[in-house]
Amino acid sequence: MAGNTFGKSFSITTFGESHGKAIGVIIDGCPAGLDIDAAFIQRELDRRRPGQSRITTQRKESDTVQILSGIYEGKSTGTPISLLIPNEDQRSKDYDHIRSAYRPSHADFTYDSKYGIRDHRGGGRSSARETAARVAAGAVAKLLLQQAAGISVQAYVSRVANIKLEKSHKELDLTQTETTMVRCPDEGTAQRMIELIDQVRKDGDTVGGVVTCVADNCPAGLGEPVFDKLHADLAKAMLSINAAHGFEYGSGFDGTYMRGSEHNDLFENEGGRIRTRTNRSGGIQGGISNGETIYFNVGFKPIATIMKPQTSVDRDGGEAEVKGKGRHDPCVLPRAVPIVEAMAALVLADHLLRNRNARMG
Amino acid sequence: MAGNTFGKSFSITTFGESHGKAIGVIIDGCPAGLDIDAAFIQRELDRRRPGQSRITTQRKESDTVQILSGIYEGKSTGTPISLLIPNEDQRSKDYDHIRSAYRPSHADFTYDSKYGIRDHRGGGRSSARETAARVAAGAVAKLLLQQAAGISVQAYVSRVANIKLEKSHKELDLTQTETTMVRCPDEGTAQRMIELIDQVRKDGDTVGGVVTCVADNCPAGLGEPVFDKLHADLAKAMLSINAAHGFEYGSGFDGTYMRGSEHNDLFENEGGRIRTRTNRSGGIQGGISNGETIYFNVGFKPIATIMKPQTSVDRDGGEAEVKGKGRHDPCVLPRAVPIVEAMAALVLADHLLRNRNARMG
Amino acid sequence: MAGNTFGKSFSITTFGESHGKAIGVIIDGCPAGLDIDAAFIQRELDRRRPGQSRITTQRKESDTVQILSGIYEGKSTGTPISLLIPNEDQRSKDYDHIRSAYRPSHADFTYDSKYGIRDHRGGGRSSARETAARVAAGAVAKLLLQQAAGISVQAYVSRVANIKLEKSHKELDLTQTETTMVRCPDEGTAQRMIELIDQVRKDGDTVGGVVTCVADNCPAGLGEPVFDKLHADLAKAMLSINAAHGFEYGSGFDGTYMRGSEHNDLFENEGGRIRTRTNRSGGIQGGISNGETIYFNVGFKPIATIMKPQTSVDRDGGEAEVKGKGRHDPCVLPRAVPIVEAMAALVLADHLLRNRNARMG
Amino acid sequence: MAGNTFGKSFSITTFGESHGKAIGVIIDGCPAGLDIDAAFIQRELDRRRPGQSRITTQRKESDTVQILSGIYEGKSTGTPISLLIPNEDQRSKDYDHIRSAYRPSHADFTYDSKYGIRDHRGGGRSSARETAARVAAGAVAKLLLQQAAGISVQAYVSRVANIKLEKSHKELDLTQTETTMVRCPDEGTAQRMIELIDQVRKDGDTVGGVVTCVADNCPAGLGEPVFDKLHADLAKAMLSINAAHGFEYGSGFDGTYMRGSEHNDLFENEGGRIRTRTNRSGGIQGGISNGETIYFNVGFKPIATIMKPQTSVDRDGGEAEVKGKGRHDPCVLPRAVPIVEAMAALVLADHLLRNRNARMG
Repeated sequence: MAGNTFGKSFSITTFGESHGKAIGVIIDGCPAGLDIDAAFIQRELDRRRPGQSRITTQRKESDTVQILSGIYEGKSTGTPISLLIPNEDQRSKDYDHIRSAYRPSHADFTYDSKYGIRDHRGGGRSSARETAARVAAGAVAKLLLQQAAGISVQAYVSRVANIKLEKSHKELDLTQTETTMVRCPDEGTAQRMIELIDQVRKDGDTVGGVVTCVADNCPAGLGEPVFDKLHADLAKAMLSINAAHGFEYGSGFDGTYMRGSEHNDLFENEGGRIRTRTNRSGGIQGGISNGETIYFNVGFKPIATIMKPQTSVDRDGGEAEVKGKGRHDPCVLPRAVPIVEAMAALVLADHLLRNRNARMG
Repeated sequence: MAGNTFGKSFSITTFGESHGKAIGVIIDGCPAGLDIDAAFIQRELDRRRPGQSRITTQRKESDTVQILSGIYEGKSTGTPISLLIPNEDQRSKDYDHIRSAYRPSHADFTYDSKYGIRDHRGGGRSSARETAARVAAGAVAKLLLQQAAGISVQAYVSRVANIKLEKSHKELDLTQTETTMVRCPDEGTAQRMIELIDQVRKDGDTVGGVVTCVADNCPAGLGEPVFDKLHADLAKAMLSINAAHGFEYGSGFDGTYMRGSEHNDLFENEGGRIRTRTNRSGGIQGGISNGETIYFNVGFKPIATIMKPQTSVDRDGGEAEVKGKGRHDPCVLPRAVPIVEAMAALVLADHLLRNRNARMG
Repeated sequence: MAGNTFGKSFSITTFGESHGKAIGVIIDGCPAGLDIDAAFIQRELDRRRPGQSRITTQRKESDTVQILSGIYEGKSTGTPISLLIPNEDQRSKDYDHIRSAYRPSHADFTYDSKYGIRDHRGGGRSSARETAARVAAGAVAKLLLQQAAGISVQAYVSRVANIKLEKSHKELDLTQTETTMVRCPDEGTAQRMIELIDQVRKDGDTVGGVVTCVADNCPAGLGEPVFDKLHADLAKAMLSINAAHGFEYGSGFDGTYMRGSEHNDLFENEGGRIRTRTNRSGGIQGGISNGETIYFNVGFKPIATIMKPQTSVDRDGGEAEVKGKGRHDPCVLPRAVPIVEAMAALVLADHLLRNRNARMG
Repeated sequence: MAGNTFGKSFSITTFGESHGKAIGVIIDGCPAGLDIDAAFIQRELDRRRPGQSRITTQRKESDTVQILSGIYEGKSTGTPISLLIPNEDQRSKDYDHIRSAYRPSHADFTYDSKYGIRDHRGGGRSSARETAARVAAGAVAKLLLQQAAGISVQAYVSRVANIKLEKSHKELDLTQTETTMVRCPDEGTAQRMIELIDQVRKDGDTVGGVVTCVADNCPAGLGEPVFDKLHADLAKAMLSINAAHGFEYGSGFDGTYMRGSEHNDLFENEGGRIRTRTNRSGGIQGGISNGETIYFNVGFKPIATIMKPQTSVDRDGGEAEVKGKGRHDPCVLPRAVPIVEAMAALVLADHLLRNRNARMG
């Protein structure tokens, strides 16, 4: 009810503040018998970790995950899996100036408005640090998807400000995503993105863009009409990520310019399997997966913390000047890639389990 | 769990198929003491009703709502409010041709894949007819928002295919929305939209576009970090509407092209009230409303049912030709306006109640 | 959240007041492909119906159920099943005297305290009439249990005041339960129970007792540690029935007098199947079914409405005299039997579905 | 869905196995601004701690709680409160003999049946050790009840086997409960209980009994009709505690022997406050608190682990002999007292918050 739980059958509850003792997550509903690869969970966290490259924040966190429960002899036991990530490199003093002042376009003012109290250090609970817990849980979801159904989830940066990757996911080799520090699988485009981010960082500014995500090998049948449509749950999952401002799946907003006769995906029999010739539906029809590739875009605004002075007000309405201290990302996108994947994996894992009850027998 | 319930504190559960006896909704969690204006509920349904103008489907449904429970002497009693809408003008024979054939870009194939059985008549549960139940419940949510907090929710058509309303919500008089049959508050733009829809209908085709929604007078504090952010729940609500393919709030995808220094909304003290000078955050920061106007866009693809023959396959993989029979909308947008409003009102009502528990005393 | 929904995977939401237009229930989560026997649903309702014998209330309600959705060609489709029972024989005037006065040991005072408004007619939402909706839904749950796993659920009256059936469920022929109007499967005991109830009714008084319920053929594995233990969910289900004041399963309170060495159920290998020699665990160990017979008792207090004058107060604290008018049951037990069965079936159906996700593959 | 979460508005999720790294709990939904007394949380845990007296298990666990999140400068912030209790004194070897053998009346067999895999060490997740997490969370709930409404929750041992405390809660001084190691507030009865437990322990056996719980100063209005009745949620909470086999509230099973005319609680005006003369309703009418004292009993079976050899079978159905090793309680009741209180406090805290939405304004 207080919003810290996501998913119904495969559900996660996260906890922790940016400068508290630890953040973490409880996964409830993971079926027994899943092979848990602890090193894989850590690798996923490493992809989100601060300080991984020169275009991300230089905050140093090893983000070493501890598994506290739910695993026995390498397998899930059906009981809650608890994952803990201690906080390490906190410089709470960097945040003293916002103890009472409100950073523009941050959650300082709204948290105060809602709760009347606020742990200002590092943004407290509103910090994107919370997403490390999601990535850890998402890694378990990925293992479930892989082992139970062979489903893969892969995201990449498809646009940084106006530098756009002009290829669709079908034309890309997604194994190349991790080869560039910006996580764009096209070498040339990646280079231009990195240059832009470098420039923006020097300017003390920030920049936004788009992450595209692709799920392959998803069986038909996932998604629950009418409210828990697969793309509706994906939309919620994506918009729950810090700085996300938009979501579109399949043909998305581009599709809204088309005629129905152009847009419709015609069915055909491909060697005994019913498929669609085109895939403007993004692998989802009527809220249920149809067996085609699922793909969607998530738009991220530029991060609010900039290294330039900004005018603001404090808790009492007095004038204040706010300027980013500490260590921050000039562009959220490279580190958002594993977060988008994690949330997508969590949605699919949840629906994979829920779908087991669609039919008798 | 099976996806037919929406909301946590103010929650609705809908039921019913397009050609069954009735559709309806149970509202659970409406506080006692709300003045229920039954005529208002009916008026909202009339805005969604088929056959209301020449640019909507000519299917005739009076959509007369019956209140079965939860109201006593004009007020809510705190018990479930049940609203029933009998189905009337069913021509199930119009659907005999799709008993086994799959309409392109519809839910026929996915329902069969998921459930192994399908009520094909009128699309069964996947029909947009289900949204009438949402509109009825949304009317109650609007009453709650109005009486409890003075919040208003208003939507309008801001684009049909490439005909775009070039004014922002701040420049419009939203009381004019209902004066045009396309529900665009700008007379000239509305006229061009109607002409396009007329043409598309004559072509036996369909067209998509965008609905914009605005919520005014929302207090600061609504929305629950970290998963149930206000905009995340709005995104899910909107994507759960038939034909919706995209969602963006505040600056949306446009904002992803900006620098942080341009995008940030600076705080100021306006006569003792803390406000933002600009509102690229769309009235929501960190997932919590900040007291500014909430606004967002929903993109709708062109409706899949067209009056032209299309190739397809049947349940056994055999070739089939499908052509729209019956009576269908050439453009979903005008009738989507009250649905978008209803879903937005449901999200806000839910969060208004949830927020009552944010603090002690 | 407002308490009108029960169950997580197989869930029901009921609505309706005693003297409103109708009561009803939405079942969400019933798997597709279940054979729905509408006549069976009606027969179950007939077992709960008022006026069925001289020892129940003489209120006349046919309790004819209408299926509004979710069934197509005799089978569930995976969409919500909506069941409606119109109210018929309302004599709201019989309740004018309690418009402001509070009946002792009823919910009049507490509803007023909670909601500030109350539909007093027939007790409104607090009336046991609401349980008709549960029985209708429970009938569908019984069909699911039978068709999916061969599980049966049978209840009977095992005590009325101090007249106790001195045989355990293992010594009884439960097919005889319906042959006596009091629903006690032992002819002699039933006769004495009926005589007592007759006498109590003549006295204008009421009497309580115990219903015992038995579930046979339940597979091992149902129940979710640690909070949703099978017997914990049964306890909640039973205590949610009007007038229920106690619950015990297996050895129950009697077992609390025993030593562990007496109480433990020893395992043995019975022709390749692991079983327990005794069954003081009531078929549930660690909150999970073990394959043995599940059995439990539910204690019901005497119904609060008596035909004698009682002193009370009204809404303003003034003195009032209250005397039962209308038509009431002298003993709730005979009609409670199908309600107990329904709630037990709902719990088991829910856990049967939930258990499908306990393991991989 | 997997049963490790309890509560809707004030909800807890527990995790951890008996011999894993740690157990713990996340509290979600605690309002901001609650004064958190960390020492009080620890004291509550100390009341449940093993090794606290000679009549409990001699296992040594300090059960030192760590607060990982949700508190800032001594107050709750509205974000999840995470409490961690590392496991210390594990002698996993004591459990080697049950790696494949099934202890009678334990959860070994049912966990294996359900999950196909089992962490046998110390009983894994089925161990009562999990209840330490509940007690920690219950302490926070107690703080909320006290600070928000002045509600107190107190439990005590009212029967051990056939040694019964022959006074009602109204005749007792509950401040004396903690003065006896058996947690019975009557000195003489306590002495006899302790003697019995001493004897039983020497016999290598175990014994059960009853815990009574009392909640004072609860306002009218808590509880949600129709399924989430206050006593129904209490019943579930209590039956979810290890070894609980029965629940009764108010007059309980004794009340089922009475006539309605004897049982009814007559209302009266006591100095402007509407009260009942008697309280057989146990402070709850129609599932909603009426402002009188809430009281109920919980029956506990004798603990299954005894120090005598018992015949059993192993996973493959082969014969096995099982005898308690390790350190176990001869009687669960003294340590059950704080657990019963914790679960009662959690139920009341949840309903206190839920009730805030019963009415407009």
